[in-house]
Amino acid sequence: MSDKGAFLLDGDKTETDLVRDASDIGAQYTLAVDAMGGDHAPDVVLAGLELAADRHPGARVLLIGDEAVLLSRLKQHPKVAAICDVRHAPTAVPMDMKPTAALRLRDSSLRMVMDAVANGEAQGVVSAGNSGAMLALAKIVIKTLPGIARPAMAAVNPSARGDVVMLDLGANLGCDARNLVEFAIMGEAFAKAVLGLPRPSIGLLNVGAEELKGDERLRQAADSLRDSVLSGQFHGFVEGHDITAGTTDVVVTDGFTGNIALKTGEGALKLSAQLLRRVFETSWLTKIGYLLVRPGLERMREWIDPRRYNGAMFVGLNGVVVKSHGGTDADGFASAVDVAMDMVTHHFNDSILERLAQMTAARVGDEAVVDAL
Amino acid sequence: MSDKGAFLLDGDKTETDLVRDASDIGAQYTLAVDAMGGDHAPDVVLAGLELAADRHPGARVLLIGDEAVLLSRLKQHPKVAAICDVRHAPTAVPMDMKPTAALRLRDSSLRMVMDAVANGEAQGVVSAGNSGAMLALAKIVIKTLPGIARPAMAAVNPSARGDVVMLDLGANLGCDARNLVEFAIMGEAFAKAVLGLPRPSIGLLNVGAEELKGDERLRQAADSLRDSVLSGQFHGFVEGHDITAGTTDVVVTDGFTGNIALKTGEGALKLSAQLLRRVFETSWLTKIGYLLVRPGLERMREWIDPRRYNGAMFVGLNGVVVKSHGGTDADGFASAVDVAMDMVTHHFNDSILERLAQMTAARVGDEAVVDAL
Repeated sequence: MSDKGAFLLDGDKTETDLVRDASDIGAQYTLAVDAMGGDHAPDVVLAGLELAADRHPGARVLLIGDEAVLLSRLKQHPKVAAICDVRHAPTAVPMDMKPTAALRLRDSSLRMVMDAVANGEAQGVVSAGNSGAMLALAKIVIKTLPGIARPAMAAVNPSARGDVVMLDLGANLGCDARNLVEFAIMGEAFAKAVLGLPRPSIGLLNVGAEELKGDERLRQAADSLRDSVLSGQFHGFVEGHDITAGTTDVVVTDGFTGNIALKTGEGALKLSAQLLRRVFETSWLTKIGYLLVRPGLERMREWIDPRRYNGAMFVGLNGVVVKSHGGTDADGFASAVDVAMDMVTHHFNDSILERLAQMTAARVGDEAVVDAL
Repeated sequence: MSDKGAFLLDGDKTETDLVRDASDIGAQYTLAVDAMGGDHAPDVVLAGLELAADRHPGARVLLIGDEAVLLSRLKQHPKVAAICDVRHAPTAVPMDMKPTAALRLRDSSLRMVMDAVANGEAQGVVSAGNSGAMLALAKIVIKTLPGIARPAMAAVNPSARGDVVMLDLGANLGCDARNLVEFAIMGEAFAKAVLGLPRPSIGLLNVGAEELKGDERLRQAADSLRDSVLSGQFHGFVEGHDITAGTTDVVVTDGFTGNIALKTGEGALKLSAQLLRRVFETSWLTKIGYLLVRPGLERMREWIDPRRYNGAMFVGLNGVVVKSHGGTDADGFASAVDVAMDMVTHHFNDSILERLAQMTAARVGDEAVVDAL
């Protein structure tokens, strides 16, 4: 990923400075991987794990799915075979199954990866399966982290200044001020663990940057963040164009707005790519032009490629839960495994719990002051 | 605008097919123009009117601002001088003035253009001035169209299939189902009048396309549209990426979501343009590549240029109100004048009133059926 630094438009943020905890290198962590989730399972899952295996020497994989199929395919994936245990799951959750139906399927591969985290066999889950079912199962089986009211869905977006974490992206359509503050805490922890930023800045998405903009709920959340241990990192309100400008490292919003902003931004980048293709296809002269700039265009494509941090993370649960895109390829699935491993090895949830404790302590402190007056 | 057709990615929608009402050609309409609004007033206003004058032979302009300044500058703009009357306004609303303060300034150029519409001297207003003040003054002076609960802000966005009207973009942060239905009516009228589409399709922005997605308010608005005279044109829910895909001609949403979607999309296009510039600037080879594709890139830039339909329209008022971007150039200001003239000559407000009457009639009809049972 380091050569993508060439695209940084402002120099003050890099991706390579990961704050890795040296004591964890060599420690053994287990990811429970749903071998049957996604449009091209289990092939893409196995090929993705094969790519990821080299990058995580301390990792074990609990591979859950159709045992007969997996054991036969593992012969072509020796690196995966070397680090994994296979567990049989009699059923799989189809991509279009309603979450309520998926919850009743107790022997699905998706259910069983969640069980493995709930009972401590694994620290994280990766699946390219049905998102709605995944969130519902994660909430019921893995359960919400103590002190967090509602888990959220987070993802990483490209910006002119490096990567930006955005949440919630649709797990909670309506949110109150408390939810937004918790999303800020979880976004900060994610930016630390996965983007390696020591003090990520945080923005609250609104229709204007001025303090009086937006509704009561947003102003309350901003007030709470300004008064909190995160005050030094809280930038205030940001607007839609700040997401791709990279004004802050974390952008916090409710699930309705976040989902629409994410898809609108992706759609606009896609439009731009489509129009550009037209430009290059106009004549033989423009085709020569394309050949001259192709290497740069390839780098640009990678820079804005959603597969870099593939999929979405469900944050605020008692374990790491990473959802890979359903239609991803092996590279994309390997990226999802990287994200899950980063979250596990950097103790993503401990960062959240620490922040929550600091906030509670500050609140108790405030009350003590009030009592003493 | 016709050569932009080359960028249409799907063939089924063109911009050129304007449904002009032949009886109106030659009729005289008056636009009240705020000469003092915008970052470069009055120069850009006068230069923009000079460009627009040729395109609207039947138009008169009531130019309101500092009379001494305007009369001296008009010597350089003979075409504007030929079609305009100058009216003196002793004050102007600064770009950063709060709407409440602007409302108290009764002799500002912005106030006086609104007065001209309210008293019937003009059919429409164009200003590049302070948006918040403009909306507040328009609501109080021009007043809301009968049958419309709340005026909205609309704009035209580029898509792969042609132009897309989106509203509301921030006039109303929170909206109920009735507001959303009225926005659909106003968006349809706008797409007819300005984009020249005889039967524009309408989408309601949501987090998924399925009927059960989103909140109660969205489902109610969708039900009302499905049961209305617009049912044949109502596509159902659309998602963020549908805006730039051009899935529907009109995208309806609340002002909070619309404002964020608009700015997120613009930001993503800007990111793409910035990265592309980097690609072309890499070496002398890529610079040659740039020269080979420059004509196509220029067309692409025009296609996604917000100046094409510059600024935003405040719709749902007793007159046409067009807000040009504050920092626009003469071309941009001329485009804003074009939009205002299109709305006036195509009887934009009459289309809205007609739809409202059809809906009321249908409702009365339904009640008559219920009474008869």
